[in-house]
Amino acid sequence: MSEQLPEGNAVIGQSGGPTAVINQSLVGAVEALRGAGAIERVFGARHAVRGMLNEDFVDMGRYSQDDLERFAVTPSAALGSSRDKPDREYGEKIVEVFKKHNIRYFFYIGGNDSSDTCRIVKDVARDSNYDLRSFHIPKTIDNDLLENDHTPGYGSAAKFVAMAFMGDALDNASLPGIKVNVVMGRHAGFLTGASALARRRDDDGPHLIYLPETDFDPDRFVGDVEHVYSRLGRCQIAVSEGINDKAGNFISAMMSGFDETDQHGNVQLSGTGALGDWLAHMLRSRLTPAGGKPPRIRADTFGYLQRCWPDASPVDQLEARKAGAMAAMYALQGRREGSVAIQRVSTIPYKIEMPLVELEKIAGKTRRMPAEYIDGRHDVSQSFLEYLRPLVGTLPVMGRL
Amino acid sequence: MSEQLPEGNAVIGQSGGPTAVINQSLVGAVEALRGAGAIERVFGARHAVRGMLNEDFVDMGRYSQDDLERFAVTPSAALGSSRDKPDREYGEKIVEVFKKHNIRYFFYIGGNDSSDTCRIVKDVARDSNYDLRSFHIPKTIDNDLLENDHTPGYGSAAKFVAMAFMGDALDNASLPGIKVNVVMGRHAGFLTGASALARRRDDDGPHLIYLPETDFDPDRFVGDVEHVYSRLGRCQIAVSEGINDKAGNFISAMMSGFDETDQHGNVQLSGTGALGDWLAHMLRSRLTPAGGKPPRIRADTFGYLQRCWPDASPVDQLEARKAGAMAAMYALQGRREGSVAIQRVSTIPYKIEMPLVELEKIAGKTRRMPAEYIDGRHDVSQSFLEYLRPLVGTLPVMGRL
Repeated sequence: MSEQLPEGNAVIGQSGGPTAVINQSLVGAVEALRGAGAIERVFGARHAVRGMLNEDFVDMGRYSQDDLERFAVTPSAALGSSRDKPDREYGEKIVEVFKKHNIRYFFYIGGNDSSDTCRIVKDVARDSNYDLRSFHIPKTIDNDLLENDHTPGYGSAAKFVAMAFMGDALDNASLPGIKVNVVMGRHAGFLTGASALARRRDDDGPHLIYLPETDFDPDRFVGDVEHVYSRLGRCQIAVSEGINDKAGNFISAMMSGFDETDQHGNVQLSGTGALGDWLAHMLRSRLTPAGGKPPRIRADTFGYLQRCWPDASPVDQLEARKAGAMAAMYALQGRREGSVAIQRVSTIPYKIEMPLVELEKIAGKTRRMPAEYIDGRHDVSQSFLEYLRPLVGTLPVMGRL
Repeated sequence: MSEQLPEGNAVIGQSGGPTAVINQSLVGAVEALRGAGAIERVFGARHAVRGMLNEDFVDMGRYSQDDLERFAVTPSAALGSSRDKPDREYGEKIVEVFKKHNIRYFFYIGGNDSSDTCRIVKDVARDSNYDLRSFHIPKTIDNDLLENDHTPGYGSAAKFVAMAFMGDALDNASLPGIKVNVVMGRHAGFLTGASALARRRDDDGPHLIYLPETDFDPDRFVGDVEHVYSRLGRCQIAVSEGINDKAGNFISAMMSGFDETDQHGNVQLSGTGALGDWLAHMLRSRLTPAGGKPPRIRADTFGYLQRCWPDASPVDQLEARKAGAMAAMYALQGRREGSVAIQRVSTIPYKIEMPLVELEKIAGKTRRMPAEYIDGRHDVSQSFLEYLRPLVGTLPVMGRL
């Protein structure tokens, strides 16, 4: 790739649900791009594609390295994010703005919808013979991008979920009862599965783990809980917000009160405790002995804290930073387009590489948990835990009598 | 107090809702009691008064110092807890068990209900001329004990709430909207008020803080939110689970689905997302422009993670340990009964002392936030933040563009 790089400006945006480390990727890219010969200025687009449409840019050159380091360790999208999903027409408007500002390098940090945006913008530019280099930088706590072993943001969210289940399992052992915890993850169970990291002993929670990849049947669910509760006198349950029946219908969509969909046509699953409350209510009505006292049943929905908790996994931070830097490096090497992917070389010792893959291989597609990571109807496998451990880092030591 | 100490065994129990540091108090007391001349064995009672009733004891002498250190850093009640609230008859049965096992020293870690249990048992023993030394060790994330500047467990829960609001405020700035976060605290707003620690700049959330100490009026609430949202385009709200109307009725009790009360006659407020969902629903129906798109409105209920998150405040850990040790020390000095209280000597430098106060001054009573800590209808005061900061310790550094 010795061809000449186009001279001009770069733009970077952060899209979709923020994570604890999405700013690491921003800073990784900005650091590598600032001072590169072919690139004059590095713009940050406020609120993703909206900022690109409305020419709402921040000059990232004005920040010191100290500023950047502070942004890097801060959860959530420093530039602001958006749920807008551009179609071809939206993409054409963006490319017009890019031309006006001589933007030749486009970096977009996000999930599968964002890589699709990247693809659309790239195609529009190509069709109008505008030399634009388009790069997608992976990000999603859902860990659901194809071509990736895992994605930046997932390790930190998984750490939160594991720590939450560790503390909550002990709380539930102190005041025994049935505890339902609802975890984010619309289509992929990777984050819900991370709850299993909390186990230390055989009788530790979570005792039941329900993933979107397995069919959820309310009757079987009640039976599963009853079985554990009668054996241990307590039962801690991890439930994905995306659990669905055999036909693929979200359980949460069968309940009332879900009247919101976003612009991607997705039903709103987060930001409400309704699914957990509904499951708790069902358990209470089915497990209360005739004329007797109901078991203690509680539900928590972990909500947005899973993606914004300000204590990220160190490995996740490093990899997110590097994913941003690698996108910049590929651009400066003359590559024209692609998505930076994290691929695992080995687990022991833990080693990854970050090739550039075709946008089309990721764009708009969803990866689900492979069968080898799922154990039966309500658990994850040992191989999933081996896969997950290096991404999360050290968890607190716990002592029990 | 040069009189002879009774020779016999000691028992210690952990009661009520667990905290991140209640095991520190257990270990602090056990360390000080083990090896003390007058005390033969130190029993831990499983599940609080239930273990005392059922003679379900653990000999704490069997654990090494390393074991104790591991218990100490582990959240939740290592011995198990209970919500049982003994009456006089229950207390009489406990004293019978104490006599049978020659238990002469009774230590009970808990909140205001637990100090009342301590008082009842003490009175029963006195009335039957049984020489029992009864000590209450404070614990509650609600921070609602009289005679105390603050209570062990509160600082760690406050740290969780502050970190949660820091991360969540940035998340809400990334994808702007209205965000309701429901915080634990039945009668006292100390924990909800801790959300204010998250603020760094003038426009940082939380923008509105609703405490149980101020009347909650749904119409005014909608107006407050609308005011902030129209100014900033976003609004982050801290709501105590215990918000109540002018007559003192819980807002949550006006909704359906609250059919559980515990043995203390308390309505169940935690372990459900219903209050947050109800407030979000009300905002959505009232703030959606005619024919227009509703603002993005989400609700999270932080739930049990507030009291069991395995990353406690270091100051809180130290003080909880010391509160346990001080109870043991007062017993070994020949004191007969009382509650260890944390009283502040100065804020700068931060300095406390731990006198022994009469059980009757704390038992069954609830402290609420003093007026000087409340600012208007929906905020806490600067003096509250000065009071709170030393209890929480260092919070993460955050950088914003």
